[in-house]
Amino acid sequence: MILTLKTGTSRKEADKVIKKVKKLGYRPHVSRGVDVTIIGMIGERAERYRDTFEAMETVDHISEIEKPYKLASREFKKENTVIDVDGVKIGGNTIVVMAGPCAVESKEVALETAKLVGASGAVIFRGGAFKPRSSPYTFQGLGEKGLKYLLNVRKITGLPVISEAMTVDQVTLVGKYCDIIQIGARNVQNYDLLKEAGRQRKPVLLKRGMATTIKELLLSAEYIMSQGNYKVILCERGIRTFEDATRFTLDLNAVPVLKKLTHLPVMVDPSHGIGIREHVATMAKASIAAGADGLIIEVHPRPEEALSDGPQSLLPEQFKTLMKELKNIAQALGRDI
Amino acid sequence: MILTLKTGTSRKEADKVIKKVKKLGYRPHVSRGVDVTIIGMIGERAERYRDTFEAMETVDHISEIEKPYKLASREFKKENTVIDVDGVKIGGNTIVVMAGPCAVESKEVALETAKLVGASGAVIFRGGAFKPRSSPYTFQGLGEKGLKYLLNVRKITGLPVISEAMTVDQVTLVGKYCDIIQIGARNVQNYDLLKEAGRQRKPVLLKRGMATTIKELLLSAEYIMSQGNYKVILCERGIRTFEDATRFTLDLNAVPVLKKLTHLPVMVDPSHGIGIREHVATMAKASIAAGADGLIIEVHPRPEEALSDGPQSLLPEQFKTLMKELKNIAQALGRDI
Amino acid sequence: MILTLKTGTSRKEADKVIKKVKKLGYRPHVSRGVDVTIIGMIGERAERYRDTFEAMETVDHISEIEKPYKLASREFKKENTVIDVDGVKIGGNTIVVMAGPCAVESKEVALETAKLVGASGAVIFRGGAFKPRSSPYTFQGLGEKGLKYLLNVRKITGLPVISEAMTVDQVTLVGKYCDIIQIGARNVQNYDLLKEAGRQRKPVLLKRGMATTIKELLLSAEYIMSQGNYKVILCERGIRTFEDATRFTLDLNAVPVLKKLTHLPVMVDPSHGIGIREHVATMAKASIAAGADGLIIEVHPRPEEALSDGPQSLLPEQFKTLMKELKNIAQALGRDI
Amino acid sequence: MILTLKTGTSRKEADKVIKKVKKLGYRPHVSRGVDVTIIGMIGERAERYRDTFEAMETVDHISEIEKPYKLASREFKKENTVIDVDGVKIGGNTIVVMAGPCAVESKEVALETAKLVGASGAVIFRGGAFKPRSSPYTFQGLGEKGLKYLLNVRKITGLPVISEAMTVDQVTLVGKYCDIIQIGARNVQNYDLLKEAGRQRKPVLLKRGMATTIKELLLSAEYIMSQGNYKVILCERGIRTFEDATRFTLDLNAVPVLKKLTHLPVMVDPSHGIGIREHVATMAKASIAAGADGLIIEVHPRPEEALSDGPQSLLPEQFKTLMKELKNIAQALGRDI
Repeated sequence: MILTLKTGTSRKEADKVIKKVKKLGYRPHVSRGVDVTIIGMIGERAERYRDTFEAMETVDHISEIEKPYKLASREFKKENTVIDVDGVKIGGNTIVVMAGPCAVESKEVALETAKLVGASGAVIFRGGAFKPRSSPYTFQGLGEKGLKYLLNVRKITGLPVISEAMTVDQVTLVGKYCDIIQIGARNVQNYDLLKEAGRQRKPVLLKRGMATTIKELLLSAEYIMSQGNYKVILCERGIRTFEDATRFTLDLNAVPVLKKLTHLPVMVDPSHGIGIREHVATMAKASIAAGADGLIIEVHPRPEEALSDGPQSLLPEQFKTLMKELKNIAQALGRDI
Repeated sequence: MILTLKTGTSRKEADKVIKKVKKLGYRPHVSRGVDVTIIGMIGERAERYRDTFEAMETVDHISEIEKPYKLASREFKKENTVIDVDGVKIGGNTIVVMAGPCAVESKEVALETAKLVGASGAVIFRGGAFKPRSSPYTFQGLGEKGLKYLLNVRKITGLPVISEAMTVDQVTLVGKYCDIIQIGARNVQNYDLLKEAGRQRKPVLLKRGMATTIKELLLSAEYIMSQGNYKVILCERGIRTFEDATRFTLDLNAVPVLKKLTHLPVMVDPSHGIGIREHVATMAKASIAAGADGLIIEVHPRPEEALSDGPQSLLPEQFKTLMKELKNIAQALGRDI
Repeated sequence: MILTLKTGTSRKEADKVIKKVKKLGYRPHVSRGVDVTIIGMIGERAERYRDTFEAMETVDHISEIEKPYKLASREFKKENTVIDVDGVKIGGNTIVVMAGPCAVESKEVALETAKLVGASGAVIFRGGAFKPRSSPYTFQGLGEKGLKYLLNVRKITGLPVISEAMTVDQVTLVGKYCDIIQIGARNVQNYDLLKEAGRQRKPVLLKRGMATTIKELLLSAEYIMSQGNYKVILCERGIRTFEDATRFTLDLNAVPVLKKLTHLPVMVDPSHGIGIREHVATMAKASIAAGADGLIIEVHPRPEEALSDGPQSLLPEQFKTLMKELKNIAQALGRDI
Repeated sequence: MILTLKTGTSRKEADKVIKKVKKLGYRPHVSRGVDVTIIGMIGERAERYRDTFEAMETVDHISEIEKPYKLASREFKKENTVIDVDGVKIGGNTIVVMAGPCAVESKEVALETAKLVGASGAVIFRGGAFKPRSSPYTFQGLGEKGLKYLLNVRKITGLPVISEAMTVDQVTLVGKYCDIIQIGARNVQNYDLLKEAGRQRKPVLLKRGMATTIKELLLSAEYIMSQGNYKVILCERGIRTFEDATRFTLDLNAVPVLKKLTHLPVMVDPSHGIGIREHVATMAKASIAAGADGLIIEVHPRPEEALSDGPQSLLPEQFKTLMKELKNIAQALGRDI
């Protein structure tokens, strides 16, 4: 960290800050200008003490130079992390597409959809059993019964499955039935949930929150990793801005920025990211071109019957066409799909 | 809800939508213009079916006319809800000030601070035992031990206490030791947590999330109320915007808008809302003038020793001065404090 | 427009609103529900009267159904507008790349850069003569002298040139020397400037403002078109959000949404959109995949000597590599470049 | 400025940066840590060279320590600037209220409104002659005729008048008829307009843009002041955020932050800031409590006939009540009104 003292801070007052730096076990690098004194405090995890220095009256502002996350950073691990989900490799040269309905609604529809998306090239099946809904009066998911339907899909189609956990208890439950545990956007800073996910052995797909910065997303990944589970997949899914023509603003800038900062795989959810069915395929293509390692897409055979997110679900036929187009773009980028 | 069909939708296609409205048990009100057909679907909780209609190709867009929350709305209950916390009435004519450190750090500092803020006029003591911190490497709170220190403060000073719960388990635990259970900004859409809070008998202070709309905040309150606990206190604490001169952007517009839409008490947290110690008092005054029923303010006797949020904590002396100023403004507004 | 009256509005009060609709020459479509009355007011440019009805105490809210812009809309003109700039066609199947330095700094550097970008495949040369800078103490551009250097580039290389106009007077001046007049993000709602641009015969590239909605951008285009100049090129260049890891948040959602709503060409400026040199090429590729008709990219032979925007300027070598990659992606999308 | 070099930058490469600092005439303060080298570059207006250093590959990031604005800063002038408008003092202990219709619509309505607001305590009359409207098809203002009506109001009532200028030409014109020239939110970074305003002798009221940071607002003020006109009044009027229950999000945090950074008067426009008539008075009170030096409020005798902004205009009776309430709050704050 670099501490910049207020203009006109006396030498005596500056010395108090320097003393504090030393007391915490850091070596201070002091630059005294005519008006301004700057104190460098370089070392492991100095940012833990950010609040302490910010609370001092003589400190004007603080710049971080070390990253506050460590295990998630490229400095910690240079090469890309590739996560193996029953043979499907996430984070390598092959782009991975997960698809399925927003919510698991019945055994039959789940299986029907899985067969359709599998035939088009999806390699992982998605479907929510526990649904975070903004209103308490809307469909909340089938719970464990939904997870059983996912297991059934897995057995019949061979596709690994992913589903969301919203509470500490659900983390183990989802881990029991599914291949990947999803942490949703609304829970990206639910730290006990993250820690519990960190105690699992199954991979975790962590979605960015609608007001989460890239730095905070990496800190949330660090929460999971700090408990020993290094198999974290990050997922951009749109942030909240003033623009109201789309459901969210898909922040594709985040893809190259994340790929630079972290070794973890980065996926994109274009369905939530734009929220309008007819534009989902376009944004899926853009996501791949932005360097995403994979996509998670909502597909429903009859969206008007879907119990949630119908307006943004692709029809199976649209998904099929999209997969062909994605193949062309992947090739142009020197990747497989 | 009002369904506006796409320009050029044929009468036959429009009839399909009308048929669907009827099938769901609603009476359709149809207006056919030259280009556009509008279908009113008026009745209880029609918004549950929003997704169903949005997913239909012929529906251009949907406007809501009923509010998606019910128990929290002024339509449901006209007069203000006043919540009695061991004699302290929240939501009435008297403005309520809660104060204390961000985190409970030790038995001694908690008690020292409580005595200081109590002497200045705070009527409820705040202090976190479970702390949601963006980094896993910073102080995470004392846990149950912290709650015991709060109980000790309560016994000695007589001040009711409030503390945050971050997990379903902590809800009961905080409820055991404290008078008010706080749900923090990061958990405002942690629906299982909200439901658990709804099963308690203790009042709940629900903070707005940093990207939560006013409507979503009221829906989150509805989650708690739908489980039977009507004692919900709302709290504005700053939203996330592009402005980086302050920690958050305190949205005081939300105060009159909420007071109009809901009968629940509305408080403001100016400490997080601006995040800069020297401006907290000013924003506390503005909050009162905006019609807030109370304030929750961070105070620490030695902010530079605080383990979190030191930079925005008032010194006890500053808090004392503020309470005097607030008294004058409350009077000017025809309220007590 | 659809007017929804407040719950409990009496029939008599509702009739006042209906009378007003008739008085303004519209036919009202009235739906009376148990609690709520809805009045459809369908017809040409009803949105002009939005304020009038919003100001009435009995009107709860208003939904627009017609688009407030007309000439810019797909309803007005179904097929894509293709703008011919001295043989370069913008808005057709061929993707157009404009490149050059942020500012024209000298005759030599301008020419050197133009030759380099032209050799790599750029078909239009960009360079600012009038620079909107947030500080009055930084380089403000060379003015007319800069325009002359652009004309020199045009003569020697044959590349059409584009430059920004910031005032009504500069519009004519830029139009005299350049092939395309640029209206910058900060002037997107400078209506007198837009009207002046509308009186020109040269094409206008209109950049989206950092807080401009898609609807407002189209209304600004409508200002230009309403004066008779239909040759408007829209350009997404990043919006302002809470994310501070990048200079702006490039809103690629805007590309398919705009292409659906308007017949005008849509370009993207990835240089400002992310603001970090090493990620500009990635976002250029994503922009093309999102369906952009072209790109405008900052290139400088020696960015550390650039008088503005050095940090986001590509090196000529990087630009060359990018052009090759773009060719592959364009092909995969069935387009040329 | 403080330049932090990338981790692992060699001593040789670091020396290149240091050499550049010296070449530009600054004395470098160098701190070499184990991993990181920090270079302080302290001196007058070092921020002019920010782009130069950001464009260097070895520079990781830059922190500013000097403020990029000078004339507008508290460092330049410690005591508050008080601007005298024909006897009305803006920026002193007395809170100044400007009121009137959004647009001047007729000689009669302007005069009628001026008499009503004057009788209630407004000391300056506002009314737009040139109106920035997002659609080209809505009322654009009466132009010079409107200014003449304002002059008529001034003669009859004695109230100084304020009106907006949108182009360089209009600046002189408005200055001829009015006492204060207003620069609107959409033109806050229209730099030629700002410079022209800086060449006038009349005071300028500069509104914050909907996506303008506090720092940028002060830089825009600096543009005006750099041309010799020091009589600048700043005005917060709401920023654009994700919240859609209000027209804008009034950022009252900006008031104490601005009062700390600058000596210029700071006003608030609660009418645009919330955009809902019934809440304007509440936000006016909050603005005063936040420390504003004055208010600018829209009042219309018959809002449903207003040609713009009817929905947010107070009725004269509401304005009268508000002025009484403001008096009480001003007193509680130790100020006059």
